[in-house]
Amino acid sequence: MPRRVDHQQRRRRIAEALWRIVSSRGLDDVGLREIAAEAGVSLGQLQHYFKTRDELLIYALAQIGELASERVQQRLGAIRGPKTPYAIIRTSLQEMLPLDPDSRTGLLVHVAFVARAVHDPQLRAITKGGTRPLADLFADQLGRARAERQIPTDRDPDTEAALLICLADGLTNYVLLDVLTPPRAQAMLDAHLANLFTGAAS
Amino acid sequence: MPRRVDHQQRRRRIAEALWRIVSSRGLDDVGLREIAAEAGVSLGQLQHYFKTRDELLIYALAQIGELASERVQQRLGAIRGPKTPYAIIRTSLQEMLPLDPDSRTGLLVHVAFVARAVHDPQLRAITKGGTRPLADLFADQLGRARAERQIPTDRDPDTEAALLICLADGLTNYVLLDVLTPPRAQAMLDAHLANLFTGAAS
Repeated sequence: MPRRVDHQQRRRRIAEALWRIVSSRGLDDVGLREIAAEAGVSLGQLQHYFKTRDELLIYALAQIGELASERVQQRLGAIRGPKTPYAIIRTSLQEMLPLDPDSRTGLLVHVAFVARAVHDPQLRAITKGGTRPLADLFADQLGRARAERQIPTDRDPDTEAALLICLADGLTNYVLLDVLTPPRAQAMLDAHLANLFTGAAS
Repeated sequence: MPRRVDHQQRRRRIAEALWRIVSSRGLDDVGLREIAAEAGVSLGQLQHYFKTRDELLIYALAQIGELASERVQQRLGAIRGPKTPYAIIRTSLQEMLPLDPDSRTGLLVHVAFVARAVHDPQLRAITKGGTRPLADLFADQLGRARAERQIPTDRDPDTEAALLICLADGLTNYVLLDVLTPPRAQAMLDAHLANLFTGAAS
């Protein structure tokens, strides 16, 4: 299937052009023509794959999400010892913070997406669907941790899972805004996890 | 000083035009000409006060920050009983979430600002300066709470203050994205505060 691969490669190449633009100066005032030029394709070719900038942004974000998931899986695979709820949650959250260039690029695209999605019901629906699996994963792990008394029994797994996701989002914003350094954000996250996993060490 | 008042009113009127545009559709692709039209002034008049869109955005955000501070002060003034660290922090945080139309408008402008500031060192410096007084207020109150054993003695006031600010930011994003309802965000915030102020009720 050489043709199909070619199409996927081209879509991917266009998405990568968007990442480069967005991670260097944001999405503001960026047109399809500029993205096509950055990708080295014509405007017509770009529009063959993506009719609007939002369509491209959705695709680019999905690609970034997949890459982030792969990095999380790799990190989880590299954990020595048992894959405890604490290790799974901490590893996943680390990948959600701009601690290295790859995650930083993805999160800059995410910030641009958020700024558009707050004004667009269709984009919001995608975000809502996108956060569900992560919230479920965290809630499952926290339920397991609670059953094993690694977190206090009065903590609600769904609420704590949602708090972790919101916290990662806020930490990301403040790192990208240079209010927090990456190591400080990491230390804050660890402090929050230590307050949650009060029985994990015992 | 009628002239000075007039200038202030005009700057304010232009800022309000920006708020209306940003809270309805974001800052993306919005030019000074459109903002001038919305404010009912000429482009030249607008540029007399604000040379660039970023200059106007900074002013608009400062205005919004002042209004939010006034609302916090009003709420604090309306607290019945002692102004405990818990009451001061919870009241301030509530005003930082999009729970009513006024704070929602302010936070939509904030989201647009963040999306630009992550690509602009000058705008980032403003954010950094802007969060400092709040972080100090929260850290002071948490230090007081810790001395009175309202929070566990092993919690670090600076870290917990920064966590609260990041959490409010993440909750705001997810409310504006319709992932969380305002009451759910409020309940999550209260759950987090309950885990922090473990000795406040005793």
